[in-house]
Amino acid sequence: MAYDINCDLGEGFGQWRLGDDDALLDLVTSANVACGFHAGDPSIMRRTCDRAVRNGVRIGAHIGYRDLVGFGRRALALTATELRDESLYQIGALDAIAKAAGGTVTYVKPHGALYHSASIDFDMAQAIVAAAIAYNPDLAIMGPAESSLHRAALDAGATFNSEGFADRAYLSTGSLAPRSNASALLGVEAAVEQALALATTGTVETSDGGTVEVRADSICIHGDSPNCVEILERIRTCLRENQIPIEAPR
Amino acid sequence: MAYDINCDLGEGFGQWRLGDDDALLDLVTSANVACGFHAGDPSIMRRTCDRAVRNGVRIGAHIGYRDLVGFGRRALALTATELRDESLYQIGALDAIAKAAGGTVTYVKPHGALYHSASIDFDMAQAIVAAAIAYNPDLAIMGPAESSLHRAALDAGATFNSEGFADRAYLSTGSLAPRSNASALLGVEAAVEQALALATTGTVETSDGGTVEVRADSICIHGDSPNCVEILERIRTCLRENQIPIEAPR
Amino acid sequence: MAYDINCDLGEGFGQWRLGDDDALLDLVTSANVACGFHAGDPSIMRRTCDRAVRNGVRIGAHIGYRDLVGFGRRALALTATELRDESLYQIGALDAIAKAAGGTVTYVKPHGALYHSASIDFDMAQAIVAAAIAYNPDLAIMGPAESSLHRAALDAGATFNSEGFADRAYLSTGSLAPRSNASALLGVEAAVEQALALATTGTVETSDGGTVEVRADSICIHGDSPNCVEILERIRTCLRENQIPIEAPR
Amino acid sequence: MAYDINCDLGEGFGQWRLGDDDALLDLVTSANVACGFHAGDPSIMRRTCDRAVRNGVRIGAHIGYRDLVGFGRRALALTATELRDESLYQIGALDAIAKAAGGTVTYVKPHGALYHSASIDFDMAQAIVAAAIAYNPDLAIMGPAESSLHRAALDAGATFNSEGFADRAYLSTGSLAPRSNASALLGVEAAVEQALALATTGTVETSDGGTVEVRADSICIHGDSPNCVEILERIRTCLRENQIPIEAPR
Repeated sequence: MAYDINCDLGEGFGQWRLGDDDALLDLVTSANVACGFHAGDPSIMRRTCDRAVRNGVRIGAHIGYRDLVGFGRRALALTATELRDESLYQIGALDAIAKAAGGTVTYVKPHGALYHSASIDFDMAQAIVAAAIAYNPDLAIMGPAESSLHRAALDAGATFNSEGFADRAYLSTGSLAPRSNASALLGVEAAVEQALALATTGTVETSDGGTVEVRADSICIHGDSPNCVEILERIRTCLRENQIPIEAPR
Repeated sequence: MAYDINCDLGEGFGQWRLGDDDALLDLVTSANVACGFHAGDPSIMRRTCDRAVRNGVRIGAHIGYRDLVGFGRRALALTATELRDESLYQIGALDAIAKAAGGTVTYVKPHGALYHSASIDFDMAQAIVAAAIAYNPDLAIMGPAESSLHRAALDAGATFNSEGFADRAYLSTGSLAPRSNASALLGVEAAVEQALALATTGTVETSDGGTVEVRADSICIHGDSPNCVEILERIRTCLRENQIPIEAPR
Repeated sequence: MAYDINCDLGEGFGQWRLGDDDALLDLVTSANVACGFHAGDPSIMRRTCDRAVRNGVRIGAHIGYRDLVGFGRRALALTATELRDESLYQIGALDAIAKAAGGTVTYVKPHGALYHSASIDFDMAQAIVAAAIAYNPDLAIMGPAESSLHRAALDAGATFNSEGFADRAYLSTGSLAPRSNASALLGVEAAVEQALALATTGTVETSDGGTVEVRADSICIHGDSPNCVEILERIRTCLRENQIPIEAPR
Repeated sequence: MAYDINCDLGEGFGQWRLGDDDALLDLVTSANVACGFHAGDPSIMRRTCDRAVRNGVRIGAHIGYRDLVGFGRRALALTATELRDESLYQIGALDAIAKAAGGTVTYVKPHGALYHSASIDFDMAQAIVAAAIAYNPDLAIMGPAESSLHRAALDAGATFNSEGFADRAYLSTGSLAPRSNASALLGVEAAVEQALALATTGTVETSDGGTVEVRADSICIHGDSPNCVEILERIRTCLRENQIPIEAPR
């Protein structure tokens, strides 16, 4: 069984940068590329796609709310129709750039507050899935297992890539511990252990000492986490030592 | 010989509207659809594409400078690389929405200050053509004959749709009289006559009483001109009376 | 007792316009001027302030969410600190333009989804009031009576201008009937009657036939309502006939 | 004779940062604070003003073109009227935030492509000066000596603060060597020497070995230059060793 590693990339805008995209693109198998609404501009998108194609990294449309100043992390009350239209727009924009780079968009993952909204609100989840399917029925949807987004993808007959987070603590509910918790961000050792647990047992230790099932085809690392490059290198080594091939889903 | 009629459409943003899109989409054969940079948002783009598909109207990507408040009418000194990336972004975004509506983008036309820049600056023209070709080698480029954009399209082996303006006065140089001229905007009668001249002789009368050659496969009407619906209806009648079929190029 | 009439103005952006500002500025005593976040750009703000000053109309900062495409009508989950900072920014920007026009901002009114949020969320209300007071302790706050915004203004020792809507139906709860209701928008006659009721009895008829108390120092007319110019002219005539002077609060 | 040191600050946007504002605000006497058009958002502006006030640093409105993705470094063909309106907007927005922080805007300096435009285009220079004067006749204008901006400020009776660049090579014309030149950016030693030359002789060595007069009341360091904190510390030491007090103009 192969295992995927994904990371949010291309999250700069104009002169601004976030994270070490070049280093990360040497370590992941799937790149969630920002599409210009919460981050990313056409030239950053092109450079990210160019390098992803060169490295054989799968390209995903990381779609978000149109809120640059809030980095897509603030809920915005748009309608399902608006969300479907905005999703199509972002997917198409990135795919044009990916194609000019010799690649193609193969999956869609919502970002930030939209990720949260699509996880719990079935209408929003359906809007995203409908946009993806309308654009290309072969697009996969990426998100948390057992979420509204998961159900909407299954309902529509779309491929779903479930993901777990290596560098974030989980609650016993299966949700991530909020960033406001002191222990929400895991250190290097704990992140590597959690990544191995996700890839092998599908259960992770929770912050209160119990365990919770987290089904995940892909491990997500936050590109803006401290030590994310080190964490990724260590995870790759750890998976290889455990004979788990690292590659994107077909 | 068939003749094309094109118009700038979908030029609203959010609550704001410009021009009577519904009426115009009953009268044109090619719709230049704003792609979100100078005007247009994903939902307006979708509604415009839906109606264009329903009416059998050809869809073109009307790409512009990223300048909503200036409506893309102010020159912006971006690099050729930035322009290529931004063109790809806009073309892909619109095509995704066009495809979900059952259509497809078949040509690219620059808007406003970018139209002017692409007409006289070969680097800018090449950037637009390169983006179009990279996205889809079958895309046509629309603009003024004998311009930098025309030459760049020919150089790249792209189809070029030349256009003339029915409702704007020409100078003896073949350029449009600037909007600041009192006589820059033609009345209904003059616009209909000029449209017929464009479609038959390929020469138009200039504001100083001479004539100038204006090669044009397509007649453009500005959707925000006063009387544009009336002008369009009269032009259609006039062309029909002269046995000139009105249809988009294949 | 004098009565104030206020209207949302300057709600265009770039080439786009909403409502007949020139006509409305001849009829109101208070102008809620959009500050660039949900609508309005610096040049539109200047033209609106110029005419307001010429007509002796009071200028208010109509602050909104940073959401041009949604016209500030979609809730956006920003923090109280962000809202305070964004309120200060908008108030200061408009006041600079108002001062160059010979006027000054004298009150602050939230727009759209922020109006709703400030009415029911005390933290948001406080953020707006804090920004207004920090800028100028003499600024009044405008909004619905008995709302969170009202309480926050009183707590801070700020002047509060309560307002009622002439052209919108009220529910028995004192809230406006949602725009989705067929009868949410009142016709000309009903709007004039409701304006007179607001100005005299402080009670209005509700859509279910009862009455509800609506304390209001000012009558608001929506500039984008059909017939709003006619409604305003009729309200002015009606108030004059009832010996109620029409003027802004001091 | 005292000498001023200024730096561009608050040049982030949302999650994005540019330069080490906290360190720089301990070393400068004048802070050119971005006002939201090319960089800066209300919360970043507030944090920058808070720290500037705490450190006794003078606050200037660093106004720019409305072009976040281009960071205000691309010429934009707006009219003088638009520029005046946009300048007023930005100055007022920052001043509201500065006042809430206990400070006030005391000067105006154009940024990036607008700096260049205001240096050579008298209409643009006048528009900026007119906005500053209309807002507050005591505002100083900052820019290069002998420029259009300088003349426009003198014409209007405004105070002008001339500035020279410590970390950039000059041509024999008195202009900066373009960033594309390999030797355009000076190293630490050369920058300190140039700062001292600006503060004492008012002449600097040019890249071709000659000298050119550069009148400057203030030394500008680019906050995004490599080693800018080190350069600033060394310049401060050097000026002190030469008995030149470091303080902002009154």
